Amino acid sequence: MNTNLQKSYDELLGEAKELAILNSTMALVGWDMETKMPPKALNLRSQQIAQLGLMGHKMLTDPRVGKTIESIEKDPGYVDMDQFQRRNVYLARKAYDEATKLPEELVFETAKQQTIAVGVWKKAKAAKDYQMFRPDLKKMIELRQKAADILMEVKGTKTPYDALLDTFESKMTADKITKVFETMRLGLIDVMKSVEKSGFKPDTSILSRSVPVEVQKKISEAAMDFIGYDTKSLNAGGRLDETEHPFTNGYYDDVRITTHYHEDRWPSSLYSVMHEGGHAIYEQNLPQAWMYQPIGSAASFGIHESQSRFVENMVGHSPEFLSYMLPHLKRIVVKPLRGVKLGDFVAAVNTVEPSKIRIEADEVTYGLHIIIRFEMERDIFAGKLKVDELPQAWNEKYDKYLGVEIENDSEGVMQDTHWASGLFGYFPSYALGNIYGGMFLKKLRRDVPTWKKELRKGNFQPVKGWLVENVHQKGNLYDPADLVKEVTGENITVKPFINYLDKKYGKIYGF
Amino acid sequence: MNTNLQKSYDELLGEAKELAILNSTMALVGWDMETKMPPKALNLRSQQIAQLGLMGHKMLTDPRVGKTIESIEKDPGYVDMDQFQRRNVYLARKAYDEATKLPEELVFETAKQQTIAVGVWKKAKAAKDYQMFRPDLKKMIELRQKAADILMEVKGTKTPYDALLDTFESKMTADKITKVFETMRLGLIDVMKSVEKSGFKPDTSILSRSVPVEVQKKISEAAMDFIGYDTKSLNAGGRLDETEHPFTNGYYDDVRITTHYHEDRWPSSLYSVMHEGGHAIYEQNLPQAWMYQPIGSAASFGIHESQSRFVENMVGHSPEFLSYMLPHLKRIVVKPLRGVKLGDFVAAVNTVEPSKIRIEADEVTYGLHIIIRFEMERDIFAGKLKVDELPQAWNEKYDKYLGVEIENDSEGVMQDTHWASGLFGYFPSYALGNIYGGMFLKKLRRDVPTWKKELRKGNFQPVKGWLVENVHQKGNLYDPADLVKEVTGENITVKPFINYLDKKYGKIYGF
Repeated sequence: MNTNLQKSYDELLGEAKELAILNSTMALVGWDMETKMPPKALNLRSQQIAQLGLMGHKMLTDPRVGKTIESIEKDPGYVDMDQFQRRNVYLARKAYDEATKLPEELVFETAKQQTIAVGVWKKAKAAKDYQMFRPDLKKMIELRQKAADILMEVKGTKTPYDALLDTFESKMTADKITKVFETMRLGLIDVMKSVEKSGFKPDTSILSRSVPVEVQKKISEAAMDFIGYDTKSLNAGGRLDETEHPFTNGYYDDVRITTHYHEDRWPSSLYSVMHEGGHAIYEQNLPQAWMYQPIGSAASFGIHESQSRFVENMVGHSPEFLSYMLPHLKRIVVKPLRGVKLGDFVAAVNTVEPSKIRIEADEVTYGLHIIIRFEMERDIFAGKLKVDELPQAWNEKYDKYLGVEIENDSEGVMQDTHWASGLFGYFPSYALGNIYGGMFLKKLRRDVPTWKKELRKGNFQPVKGWLVENVHQKGNLYDPADLVKEVTGENITVKPFINYLDKKYGKIYGF
Repeated sequence: MNTNLQKSYDELLGEAKELAILNSTMALVGWDMETKMPPKALNLRSQQIAQLGLMGHKMLTDPRVGKTIESIEKDPGYVDMDQFQRRNVYLARKAYDEATKLPEELVFETAKQQTIAVGVWKKAKAAKDYQMFRPDLKKMIELRQKAADILMEVKGTKTPYDALLDTFESKMTADKITKVFETMRLGLIDVMKSVEKSGFKPDTSILSRSVPVEVQKKISEAAMDFIGYDTKSLNAGGRLDETEHPFTNGYYDDVRITTHYHEDRWPSSLYSVMHEGGHAIYEQNLPQAWMYQPIGSAASFGIHESQSRFVENMVGHSPEFLSYMLPHLKRIVVKPLRGVKLGDFVAAVNTVEPSKIRIEADEVTYGLHIIIRFEMERDIFAGKLKVDELPQAWNEKYDKYLGVEIENDSEGVMQDTHWASGLFGYFPSYALGNIYGGMFLKKLRRDVPTWKKELRKGNFQPVKGWLVENVHQKGNLYDPADLVKEVTGENITVKPFINYLDKKYGKIYGF
């Protein structure tokens, strides 16, 4: 690099570092709000968050940053920069454009409407009254539509909705998702139907036997030990706390997870720890050398979800892991698991049952919940679906895809907070995570043929090592589809995921 | 106020609010570091703190702030502003001058030396080797001397050391302190001698009986309930955590305390909770209307200490409180307190015994530890005491004032971290807190004659109400000496404190 270019690039990395540090502070303040904050502090906390948010926005949109990026892009030496440097510049440009091209007024109004709409959504959901929620949802959609129209121009996407998708899953389009989701829908329904036809109903009473919270905490410890999420040593970079809705929060050397304990649903905390633990080890194993750089971050929401679901489902719900874990669980839990056989336990935690609520769905039907949301979002932003029509469209799709009858809008179109928060384009990430996970699994089987044997011995290291090397250590070097191709050699395909489900549930349900 | 003045004043309050919010975030980040942070996060955390510190410094020293203050001060309407407004302007001016008049280079070098000197101090203390610490202590003193020389000019104090004192205890001078401390020294030594002459040695074995941590936590709960420090309700503004060194941290609606649990010194946690609780209720009861304003803060470090010591000592160690609390403690602790009589318990927790270590000192001898540090600091900054002479001077004073023989510098001149941190001028606040507390107590007795009767019934409300009304609700409206005068009608005098000690310990030790 020539001196000028080097200087500009160093400046850019310096600016990125400042922003990364501020964002990590913001994450900490948010974590505290959910876990430790005295309730009275809510107003002070919202002021702290608003101030940090404004500071972050100022840093991100500082015209100097724009000039730095431009001077790098225009430098004749730009083409000779290496892959890592160019990706850093690309990611900085993307973030800068996304942040600067929207009018401040629109950003401000959207943030305000978010608070209002979430507040109204909570009340409307409690009252099972969609009409109460409708006007604020409508306004939120209009605001996001305005943003999407502008971002479409900036990003050069085919549709406004593609511009929203791109903020969560870089370069992903509704056309691509439609195609892959359509194949997935048919595959999932096939598996679901086979399960139904088998006539086998696992005994799930094991899962609702009362286990005291103190005992469940020991299960959490065992799960964290298994995945190597360290909360105890002198060099621990994690910790576990309790919140109603589990989450992962943090950056590199300070990545924290939460779980919840329900005495009458004890596996819920085990699988929350494994899910969030999957997110956490991703963040913890990003390349140390890239810390504070744009490439030193997760590749996308979908890739993140692939990691959490891999640990929770493909590992955590596998007969192999469970054959290792059950004796441990029996030692910890004692009475509620006395006499329970491995086969019955595997079947119980892998029960497939179409349901109305997304966050309670199993591995097979989960994708159908997502497809419904995606199709509706896509149609809303294409002007094909009106706010008034959402409840009916929702209920029809639930009937058609899942065969369940929605009785009121609280268990229907109002069940999730995402739309009230304006998070259109986010839902597909969840299902893309399953699809990516299926592809990773196929490749893992080839690269590490002994992975199941090792899981049976309680050794997660071969799987973790593979994920770290192939996914975590790639940071944000590739857009998600490119990362998947780099790792598996294939374009995005739902086949491996469906094959995995078919084989696994075929064994459990005997089809 | 005229329009221009109103505009400038509103601007000033806006700037003060931004700074108060940022400082509250900084406090939270610091709290997390001491209580919850995974150890691996230390480097990231230091970056977060440095960034927030720099942002705060920029806010505080922004030339616009200086211009705003100046335009208010020069406005013809300034003299007609009310007491609260003028105090806000005064405090803003003071903070601005303190922050802007020191060269950035000196501030930077001092911060760097602080980290270095504290690191070296830890090692030197462990090695009992003053020579190892000496060069970095010398450098720290030189840096603080430079700052003190500049601040003396800015503040117009008589000596450089007075300028340092002023940053912790506004308008306090070494001359005033020397005078009041001299009286205190004679008074404390009198009480100490009377205790010695009495020949009575309380049986302190009660205090070292083993009490499990889980049981001690229940004592903490009882202590917090007693003082009305709420950590449990839906509107709680506090919480209790564990750290090696207890502290209070926070602002208004989010004020958190910590304690420590030693199985073989169970009263330590009880009194840590009461001490920190005294600090906490002060912060929580600053006038709500003044939140985010300069006057919406504690009056000084000494006044703060007066509140913590009032709750810990004058209330928490009083026979009245203990007569109420002992039956509760017996119910909580059971075996270790079985058969213990009130008189024995009161004597045990109020044992007076000259010792070498400040933080382990009792209510009577504590002040002597402080006087020694003050006299030495005063002489250091007056050029009368050299860094080489500190150990000897220290040991001689300990022999003379407390009658104890210091065997090595780790239990002598190197016992505290303050000097390594450059906190010269801070120590006097601790003893001034005792003195203020004595004066407050005298006035409380007159205003609320039933206070002891109420304490015996477990009712802290009359005392707390008096402290809230007379001290907490005054915020930072007065310099400490003026506040004390406003509350008690008297200039600073050590007599009430000595009288209190004399009477209390006279009863316990029979003199």
